[in-house]
Amino acid sequence: MDGIGDRPDDRIEGKTVLQYATMKNLDGFAKKGMNGIMDPIAPGIVPGSDTAHLALLGYNPYEVYTGRGPFEAAGIGIKLKEGDVAFRCNFAAVDEKLVVKDRRAGRIKQGTNELAKAVDGMKIDDVEIIFKEAVEHRGVLVLRGKALSSNLSDVDPHSNNIRIHESKPLSVDAKRTADILNKFVKESYAILKNHPVNIKRNRNNLPPANIILPRGAGIFPRMRSMDEKYRLSSACIAGISLVKGVCRLAGMNIIDVKGATGGVDTNIDAKIKVAMSALNKYDFVVVNIKAPDLFGHDGDVSGKVKMAEKIDKALEPLKELDCLKIFTADHSTPVTVKNHSADPVPITITGKSVRVDDVKNFDEISCAKGALCRIQGMGLMNIARDLTNRSEKFGA
Amino acid sequence: MDGIGDRPDDRIEGKTVLQYATMKNLDGFAKKGMNGIMDPIAPGIVPGSDTAHLALLGYNPYEVYTGRGPFEAAGIGIKLKEGDVAFRCNFAAVDEKLVVKDRRAGRIKQGTNELAKAVDGMKIDDVEIIFKEAVEHRGVLVLRGKALSSNLSDVDPHSNNIRIHESKPLSVDAKRTADILNKFVKESYAILKNHPVNIKRNRNNLPPANIILPRGAGIFPRMRSMDEKYRLSSACIAGISLVKGVCRLAGMNIIDVKGATGGVDTNIDAKIKVAMSALNKYDFVVVNIKAPDLFGHDGDVSGKVKMAEKIDKALEPLKELDCLKIFTADHSTPVTVKNHSADPVPITITGKSVRVDDVKNFDEISCAKGALCRIQGMGLMNIARDLTNRSEKFGA
Repeated sequence: MDGIGDRPDDRIEGKTVLQYATMKNLDGFAKKGMNGIMDPIAPGIVPGSDTAHLALLGYNPYEVYTGRGPFEAAGIGIKLKEGDVAFRCNFAAVDEKLVVKDRRAGRIKQGTNELAKAVDGMKIDDVEIIFKEAVEHRGVLVLRGKALSSNLSDVDPHSNNIRIHESKPLSVDAKRTADILNKFVKESYAILKNHPVNIKRNRNNLPPANIILPRGAGIFPRMRSMDEKYRLSSACIAGISLVKGVCRLAGMNIIDVKGATGGVDTNIDAKIKVAMSALNKYDFVVVNIKAPDLFGHDGDVSGKVKMAEKIDKALEPLKELDCLKIFTADHSTPVTVKNHSADPVPITITGKSVRVDDVKNFDEISCAKGALCRIQGMGLMNIARDLTNRSEKFGA
Repeated sequence: MDGIGDRPDDRIEGKTVLQYATMKNLDGFAKKGMNGIMDPIAPGIVPGSDTAHLALLGYNPYEVYTGRGPFEAAGIGIKLKEGDVAFRCNFAAVDEKLVVKDRRAGRIKQGTNELAKAVDGMKIDDVEIIFKEAVEHRGVLVLRGKALSSNLSDVDPHSNNIRIHESKPLSVDAKRTADILNKFVKESYAILKNHPVNIKRNRNNLPPANIILPRGAGIFPRMRSMDEKYRLSSACIAGISLVKGVCRLAGMNIIDVKGATGGVDTNIDAKIKVAMSALNKYDFVVVNIKAPDLFGHDGDVSGKVKMAEKIDKALEPLKELDCLKIFTADHSTPVTVKNHSADPVPITITGKSVRVDDVKNFDEISCAKGALCRIQGMGLMNIARDLTNRSEKFGA
C-alpha cells in the first residue's frame, strides 16, 4: 500500500489516516497476526518508491541505487546489462541557440515513438545508444559500452528560458562518458529539428520536440536476482513503471493486470484476484497499490481515508488464502507533508507460523506495540523466508 | 538529562528514579508525544558522555573517537586540526628517579597557568607542542605535525610510588610519536622542576608539579560539521567542558550561561531560558544537564530523585514553546551501579508532526511501549530532521 503511512492530521481528529479509516479486514489481519513498525531503509531516511522497494526486496539501496535512470529504463521494458548507464529524458523544445523554450515540448502525446526510433541505435565512439520513449514527453536513454560512468551532471537545466547545460564529469573517470552524452544531445537536435513529426508540429503551432534532455544518470550494477538470493520464484503486480522496473531488475516476473492503472481508479479487486492465482505458479508475489501515495502527495486526507477503506474491502478474499501474508507500505506519504517522509510504516504478518500478539488495529501506533517491534526493510525477505521454513542455518 | 536512565532500586520500592520521581511536566510531554527507548550507541554498549553525545549528534563514535584527548582539548577551547594527536594530562610530583609521589601534585590549584606556559610552544623533531592547563592539576597536550599516530600507551602509571611509564607504540607507525611524547615528558621535568612556582611549593611543603603525565591519546579525525551534515545552524548549552568539546568539534556554537556550572547547583532555569531565546537564532539547540549523572555516580538515590523533580519543574516554560522537542539522556548512570551502564534511555519527542501514542509517563518502562519502539542514538538527528520536514528523499 504505497505511501499509506501517515502522521496525525487535525482534519481527522488528530489521527492518522489508518487510525481514522474503518478497516475491517486489515484490523482482522492485525488481530490474527504479528505486528510492528518498519523503517523501509533506516530510521530518519526518507525513501523513494524505488529505493524503498529495493530495500523491501532485500537489496541495499546504498549499493545498487546510483540514480533513477536504470529503474526508469527497466520500468519501460529495456533489458539492461551490467555497466549500462541510463538516464531519464525529456523531449524538449529549444531554439537555434539551444535555449529551452518548453522543457516538455508541450507535453507531446503523439509521434514520440517515431522520434525515438530516429535516434535509437546510433553509435558514438564505440558506445551503443539505446533510446526509448515513455509516457508523453518522457523517454529513457541508455549508453552501453566499456568503462562508462554515471558520475555526471544533468543536461536538463530543469527550467525554461535557460540554455541546455553541458554535462560535466563529477569525477575524472567520467570525462569520456560526459563527452559522449553531450555529443548525443547535439546529435539529437540535428536529427530531430527537421524530423517530419516536428515539421508537422511547427505547422500546427505546437512546440517542437526537437532535442532530448537527459538527467538522473545511474549505472546498472550487478544485482543478484531474487531467485539467486532467496531461491524463490517471484512475480510483481504493479500499476506504475517505477515499481515494475525495480522488480524487473530483481529478476522478478512482471504480471500485467487489466485495469491496474497505477492511478486512483485502479482495479484493486482484479490485482488481488490475479495475485491469488499467481500463487499457484510462484512462491512469492508482491502487489503494489499506488493510489494511497497519490492522495498523500495531493494532501487529500479524505481521499486517502476512502482509498484505505477501498483497499481494505478489496483484501476480503485474502481471508481465505492460506499462505504467509504481509501487509505494509514502502514509505509514509503524510497528507500534511504532501511528500514522502521517513516515518516508519505499520506492518502486519499473518500465517500459521507467526507469533500472534494482542494488536487489534492496523495503524502506525497500534502496530508499534506488537511482537515485531521495529524492524528494517532490508531484513523483511529473510523474515518471510524463515517464517515459511525456507532458510538455511548459519552455523551448526 | 545526563545519566538520568536507571535501574530498579529497593530503596525506592524497586522502581527506577524516573518511575519514582513526581514529574508533572515530563509526564505531560510523554502524554502529548511519541515515546520509546534508545540505545545511545548500541545495545549493551556502555557509552561515555563524549561517545554518547557524538552518537546522538549523528557521528559514529567508532569512526571519530580514537581517545579522549581531542575532546578534552576542544573542551578547554583548543582549536584542533585534522591529524593532531591530543592527550589528557596531569601535573604530578615525581622524585629524581621519576617515581610518582603524587600523581595529582596535591591537586594544585594555582600557578598551573604559568607552568603550562613554560612548556607550551616548544618544538620536538618538527612537531609543534601545544599545552594548556585545565581545572586543578589537569591539562591537555597536543602534538601537531605530520604522520603522527595515537596508537600509544599511557605515560601516566595511574598510581603513586611507581616510576612513570615510557609510552610504547602499539603499532609500527606510532614509534616516532612515542619517541616525541617520551622526549616531551622528560623535557617537562627538566623545565618544571626548577620553575619558580615549584620552588615556592617546595618552600611551603606542597608537592611540586614538576612533571606532566599524558594519557588517553586520541587523533583528531576529519569531522563534518553539523551544518555540513544536516544543514542546521546549531548551538550547545552545557556546563561541562567534555560536552562543550564534543559540540565544538561538531562545529556547533557554544553558548555560555551564567550559573550553568555542570554541578548539582547548576541553574537549570537559566539554561532553559537561554535555550528558548537561542531558538530565535539557531535551528537546533542542545541542552545538557549534568547533575543527574553526578548523583548516579555517587549512588545517591534520593539526591537523583530530587534532581529529576527539579529538572522537571524547570522544564515548565517549554510547555508553551512551539517546536520539535526531544527529552532524553546520553546514557544511564544507575545509582546501584555508581557508573554508566548500557541500559537504554527513555526518549520522548513532542511536536506537531509526531504520532501521539498512549504512553503516560516519562520513564524507562512506560516509554518502551510507545510508538518509537527502540531506536539507536545515531539515527536521532535524521529522525528530527524528518519530523521538521528538512530531509531530502533518497530515490524517487
